Amino acid sequence: MAEMIRQDKTARQLRLLSDAIDSGRLGPVKRMVQTLSPAEIGNLLESMPPHKRNVLWGLVDPEDDGEVLLHVGDEVREGLIADMDQDELVAAVEDLDIDDLADLVEDLPDAVINEVVRSMDRDDRERLEQVLSYDEDTAGRLMNPDVVTVRADTTIDVVLRYLRLRGELPDHTDYLFVVSKRHQYMGRISVASLLTSDPNTPINKLIDDAQPAIDVNESSTEVARQFSDHDWVSAPVVDDGNVLLGRITIDDVVDIIREEAEHQALSAAGLDEDEDMFSPVHKAFRRRLIWLTVNLGTAFLAASVVDQFSPTIEKIVALAVLMPIVAGMGGNSGTQVLTLMVRGLALGQIGASNVWFLLRKELSVALINGLALGVFLGVIVLIWFHQPMLSLVIGCALLFNVLTSAAGGVLVPLALKRMGFDPALAGGVLLTTLTDTMGFLGFLGLATLILT
Amino acid sequence: MAEMIRQDKTARQLRLLSDAIDSGRLGPVKRMVQTLSPAEIGNLLESMPPHKRNVLWGLVDPEDDGEVLLHVGDEVREGLIADMDQDELVAAVEDLDIDDLADLVEDLPDAVINEVVRSMDRDDRERLEQVLSYDEDTAGRLMNPDVVTVRADTTIDVVLRYLRLRGELPDHTDYLFVVSKRHQYMGRISVASLLTSDPNTPINKLIDDAQPAIDVNESSTEVARQFSDHDWVSAPVVDDGNVLLGRITIDDVVDIIREEAEHQALSAAGLDEDEDMFSPVHKAFRRRLIWLTVNLGTAFLAASVVDQFSPTIEKIVALAVLMPIVAGMGGNSGTQVLTLMVRGLALGQIGASNVWFLLRKELSVALINGLALGVFLGVIVLIWFHQPMLSLVIGCALLFNVLTSAAGGVLVPLALKRMGFDPALAGGVLLTTLTDTMGFLGFLGLATLILT
Repeated sequence: MAEMIRQDKTARQLRLLSDAIDSGRLGPVKRMVQTLSPAEIGNLLESMPPHKRNVLWGLVDPEDDGEVLLHVGDEVREGLIADMDQDELVAAVEDLDIDDLADLVEDLPDAVINEVVRSMDRDDRERLEQVLSYDEDTAGRLMNPDVVTVRADTTIDVVLRYLRLRGELPDHTDYLFVVSKRHQYMGRISVASLLTSDPNTPINKLIDDAQPAIDVNESSTEVARQFSDHDWVSAPVVDDGNVLLGRITIDDVVDIIREEAEHQALSAAGLDEDEDMFSPVHKAFRRRLIWLTVNLGTAFLAASVVDQFSPTIEKIVALAVLMPIVAGMGGNSGTQVLTLMVRGLALGQIGASNVWFLLRKELSVALINGLALGVFLGVIVLIWFHQPMLSLVIGCALLFNVLTSAAGGVLVPLALKRMGFDPALAGGVLLTTLTDTMGFLGFLGLATLILT
Repeated sequence: MAEMIRQDKTARQLRLLSDAIDSGRLGPVKRMVQTLSPAEIGNLLESMPPHKRNVLWGLVDPEDDGEVLLHVGDEVREGLIADMDQDELVAAVEDLDIDDLADLVEDLPDAVINEVVRSMDRDDRERLEQVLSYDEDTAGRLMNPDVVTVRADTTIDVVLRYLRLRGELPDHTDYLFVVSKRHQYMGRISVASLLTSDPNTPINKLIDDAQPAIDVNESSTEVARQFSDHDWVSAPVVDDGNVLLGRITIDDVVDIIREEAEHQALSAAGLDEDEDMFSPVHKAFRRRLIWLTVNLGTAFLAASVVDQFSPTIEKIVALAVLMPIVAGMGGNSGTQVLTLMVRGLALGQIGASNVWFLLRKELSVALINGLALGVFLGVIVLIWFHQPMLSLVIGCALLFNVLTSAAGGVLVPLALKRMGFDPALAGGVLLTTLTDTMGFLGFLGLATLILT
């Protein structure tokens, strides 16, 4: 229900905008776009076929262009950037925060980057270079160097006067960071405590130093975990020497959480979370073709197993009729186990201490389900084909395949992870290969032994 | 890589704890647990088989019990609560925030709720009743009634003095809410502006009233969308008459975002995001059995299609060998389209304005891929079986099935959504039924026409 309401809201905006663009009434479109946040505009751009997307993009306030570019997937972004000339691009990105600019750098033409860097002051240029020197997907790339720091040997009153002089705080400033003379991180002091404590209170009485700062080389996944485990809004980032380099804020972390959670759903189908739903056919077909060709390879493997049993099938054609059932049920039950495992691995919930318990549990569940479904299927097949031995064969084959797929569902993702592959991406293909080949081998092999 | 590092960290904690529990050295376990946040403890509890989980649960500081219960999935939570006696439960939950207590109410025994409610003052009791009066998955259930409000006709100085008197601010207070005499929401004033503006500035000069408050009946999905579209840390909630009822904070929103994104990955395999990975076998097998039985039904449908063509298969047994390929490729290509559509629908990116474009695009992609793979498969089959007509039949059948599955991938989730079903849950089963039956029908039908 909740999802439907949401869909209705965004879809309504989408319909209004689409209709207006179709009819050429661009005035109302422009006014509507001005009321939207960059993220909302980004979502609408992602929801439009290329020709409409370009019209809408042309109507976005040039001041918002940079922020909007940050809120669309990689593929859509490339298309939008290709549609802009150099001056427009420079104007769009030159006012962005350093961390946001760093996100865009690799998508921008060199000429644009050079121009933007030339217009920066020396401080900002050094900051950008610093942020870019860290690996993608690390805290260093997520952090913004713009932080408010205070010294421990002062009072709230002094800090309040300093803040009034400063005039503005960076977004999401819930803590100020206390640093030493050498700019080393000593702890944080909440904005709330500045507001509620007596102005004469010394800062060092209010310091919260329970939580160490984030290491600049920490992975973004671990950063996201820490934010959601501790309900942080912002957190300090330091180098090896504990020198404060910048801070990470919750808005960037929410994007990571969303991306990582989407990754499991999309990569199970061989898709990339940055795929443009409306990408041109010539781009889309190539990506899909690679995935389908991999799957064709596994299908050939299954077919070659069946091929070994051609003589048996020739005698008992009912086997061909029942083949899809055994393979399909193995695939379904294995996928359930695989999906739970992939999530558990992503959350760090699975390790040597519990994997044997999991395997035993899944095999027990598979044993019960395999027996129940095997008997059920056996009875149906008996009624259908009136051959008691065939009914026995398919019942046993189903049990065997459900057990195999449970073991595969637990062990395949673990093995992939250990070998450095992404279980979310490769797990499904490998598991299907396993359940198909083992399913056909069990069913047709047993049939050959018992029925011929 | 990022995921592996994360896994390593949590898995290391898990291994340490597991080993310590195994060896019975509970002192170190207790000390380690005291350094962890409730969310981290919750994650570790979810990562343990029942017997270890109960040991760890007994070592958690009773003061943290309530917070930890909030950070585990429904099924794990039920188990933990079942393990506690009434006094422990009352002690665990009586100090929780109203909104958090409301989350737990339905899992708690009536006796515990009555005891907790009795110990509350009248204000809190009324607040709890109010929060519970709203539907689950609405803003009303997410909000916390504890808000800091100020009046417009005063100055910063007065507000600062009031805050010092108040002494403490609720977590994540980045804005104070300005209300009228009748407690109607008028706008918000940032904590940053309180710190940086001159103390004599009148509040009404600093009010930010650009964004309307969230309606108390708004769906939690829409609340999450607004938070991430506007980078909010907190937002006000009002009733029909614009009276301020409470506020929602980013920590609860992050949980919603995570759950909704996981929903797609898990429900595609017929799983619930609240499933306990270590649930007892007698619980797990029942849930899985229901899903497998549904899938068995669709497998029977596919088998009965094959059954119609038994005479053809009897003559040409190669058809049985190649059957899995045609059906499998249709399933794979259809699943890609389905996965993109399910995500697009969840994000509200698909509507009447773009669905025809999407259908045309996916059919074009399927046409190219179907032709390419059809020719490729045809050549392989020609080399394998030396039957040109068979090779023609399978090539055409593959093309037909890839096209069917693309159309199904677009239309099945749309139809499900329109009928009020969850496309993420039912889409896969329906699409597989379609691609299996149409795949076999196309392949075996064509073979019957041309080869016999």
